[in-house]
Amino acid sequence: MKRTLILAAALLMGAAASAQQALGPASGITSPEINPDHTVTFRYRGPKAVTVQLQGDFLPGRVDMKEGRDGMWTYTTEPLTGELYSYSFIVDGVRTMDPNNIYQNRDIATWTNIFTLSAEKGDKGWYYEVHDVPHGTVSHVWYDSPTLGMKRRLSVYTPAGYEDSPKAKYPVLYLLHGSGGDEDAWLDLGRTAQIMDNLIAEGKAQPMLVVMPNGVYFNSASPGAAVNMFQPTMANSRSDSTAEIEESFPDVMKFIEKHYRVKKDGYSRAVAGLSMGGRQSSRLARRYPGTFGYVGQFSGVAVPSGDNDPELAALFAAKPKLFWIGVGKDDGVKRNSLILKDYCDQHGYPCEYYESDGGHIWRNWRIYLTIFAQKLFK
Amino acid sequence: MKRTLILAAALLMGAAASAQQALGPASGITSPEINPDHTVTFRYRGPKAVTVQLQGDFLPGRVDMKEGRDGMWTYTTEPLTGELYSYSFIVDGVRTMDPNNIYQNRDIATWTNIFTLSAEKGDKGWYYEVHDVPHGTVSHVWYDSPTLGMKRRLSVYTPAGYEDSPKAKYPVLYLLHGSGGDEDAWLDLGRTAQIMDNLIAEGKAQPMLVVMPNGVYFNSASPGAAVNMFQPTMANSRSDSTAEIEESFPDVMKFIEKHYRVKKDGYSRAVAGLSMGGRQSSRLARRYPGTFGYVGQFSGVAVPSGDNDPELAALFAAKPKLFWIGVGKDDGVKRNSLILKDYCDQHGYPCEYYESDGGHIWRNWRIYLTIFAQKLFK
Repeated sequence: MKRTLILAAALLMGAAASAQQALGPASGITSPEINPDHTVTFRYRGPKAVTVQLQGDFLPGRVDMKEGRDGMWTYTTEPLTGELYSYSFIVDGVRTMDPNNIYQNRDIATWTNIFTLSAEKGDKGWYYEVHDVPHGTVSHVWYDSPTLGMKRRLSVYTPAGYEDSPKAKYPVLYLLHGSGGDEDAWLDLGRTAQIMDNLIAEGKAQPMLVVMPNGVYFNSASPGAAVNMFQPTMANSRSDSTAEIEESFPDVMKFIEKHYRVKKDGYSRAVAGLSMGGRQSSRLARRYPGTFGYVGQFSGVAVPSGDNDPELAALFAAKPKLFWIGVGKDDGVKRNSLILKDYCDQHGYPCEYYESDGGHIWRNWRIYLTIFAQKLFK
Repeated sequence: MKRTLILAAALLMGAAASAQQALGPASGITSPEINPDHTVTFRYRGPKAVTVQLQGDFLPGRVDMKEGRDGMWTYTTEPLTGELYSYSFIVDGVRTMDPNNIYQNRDIATWTNIFTLSAEKGDKGWYYEVHDVPHGTVSHVWYDSPTLGMKRRLSVYTPAGYEDSPKAKYPVLYLLHGSGGDEDAWLDLGRTAQIMDNLIAEGKAQPMLVVMPNGVYFNSASPGAAVNMFQPTMANSRSDSTAEIEESFPDVMKFIEKHYRVKKDGYSRAVAGLSMGGRQSSRLARRYPGTFGYVGQFSGVAVPSGDNDPELAALFAAKPKLFWIGVGKDDGVKRNSLILKDYCDQHGYPCEYYESDGGHIWRNWRIYLTIFAQKLFK
């Protein structure tokens, strides 16, 4: 290997490096630091701060961080179980990102720092982390929706091996986000690629495509991919959006079934979603009986219309293999979920009901996806 | 359309919405606001703040924002030209993200708020924005690198129409990032998909694939896609990384030429990169003469070895159509770029040299890509 030239280039590079646009904090501060006993230490350097607090979904409320030498504020948690956790600092009353942790995700219009922790192989956190297993491909693709009169963007996960198995055909999970979300939400907040990579590598889920369309019918794409730098809000959830998505959903399926090697029978298709997307998956399954052999409703259902809902009757007459309802015990939509579950029981429809702790939060939607994906296409 | 059910679901959803994990600031504050005269107004609500300043790459230094009613701090710029701009607030001395602007990008380990502005169609900012033109697909794919002994991630842009033209074959631009960067950098900071979409739609660039591998040979992928939540640093630029990437680059090309419909002759391949990636593109072109008909070096070159560099002689003996050097007049690597340019002139090699304002910054690399892409495959 000729190293002379390379060494010369490296030495001469010294001058240029100092002109780099953003050198990063280079602070030498590690935050968060996951300790061997699964406690986590947070650090923030703020010599002029009067109070620094920590808030996170692993704490019951805000806690005070303690100032040490050189204005370094620290806090160490109790041992945590495997999970993806979110947190922020509160510096003199103002919510502040951790400048030493680049990992963050955006929910609607709020960025929050995150970290994952796995206490042992196979716990929840383990499924959300990247491991040295075969990885699927994630693509952001534009498709034509004549029904809505626009090109729209969707995300597609194809499992590891898809490219190298040119004759194989795969089943498809259509996975829908909530209001204020977009076609990136299940990937960024939901860890879909990591969950699927890990479940498939462990032999716990079938290799499948996961298709994540944009479920807000008047948006073409997520912020940054759409025309105009719009600020997302919950107003994305208009009362009639469910209907519009029902009507335009065949455009999505048509595109996927034309451009990807997928199986085209109902028992090779699943539809699931969270909150608004749960209602949408519920509505899609009713509107197109037999199209989806597996239906998942995460913290969102469409309640039956009256005592004899003809759409639900048609849906179950087509014999879906799974009709799965997941909801948190503190979730405002638990009541509706139970109405639907009771209706299923009264009519002899085979609905599975799963109740977790907590409320209307991404922590639960990641859990529901992990459970639901293992039940598909077997 | 049956609206009864939908309306019921929407009404019942009210309770659930209040339990959503992150509702966003819902502050009603627009920041930044691009005014019709291309001035830009920034707003920050900080009733307890003593000083709020604004820093941005459209300002010579920090400026004081002015406090109005309800603790609303504002600043309005002079009219700006079309560009992608970066900024931060400084609240009581602490760098703070704009809580009302979700748009940001990460350079190495630093997140910064951004916005784009186009003063007129076809200016720089216009090319960095999303317009209602056909959009290409962006995929994040894992490939096998036997040379480095690992699976590695790369990003691929396929132009609009690729999926619907199953017999068409396309040329390929291999586009390399700088030290501290990764396979997402050219997409996030470089606006590659937007630039290519817009240039192709305007008929100014040929439809082509753009392949963005990870150029740090000991990393498999960008933060979030790699095992472990590592914090990127400039230490990613080890002195020998250029050589390792040279040796392993055929793994990238082999994967692309097997899995994508691409033309396989040298005049249908280009390689370009910024800073470390500029040196890499320079080294790759020398090591594999005839492989790349177009070579672009943005703020980074490999200088000739002695008065008669045999690799440069072999490179130009293979008759590349373009050997393009771009650098900023304030860039530390301008000296090296001129050494290479002078060497070309002395030896009668056809090197194009382009000098822009400014230094070693992404603003320049976006400009160089926009210029370089228009010169390819024609």
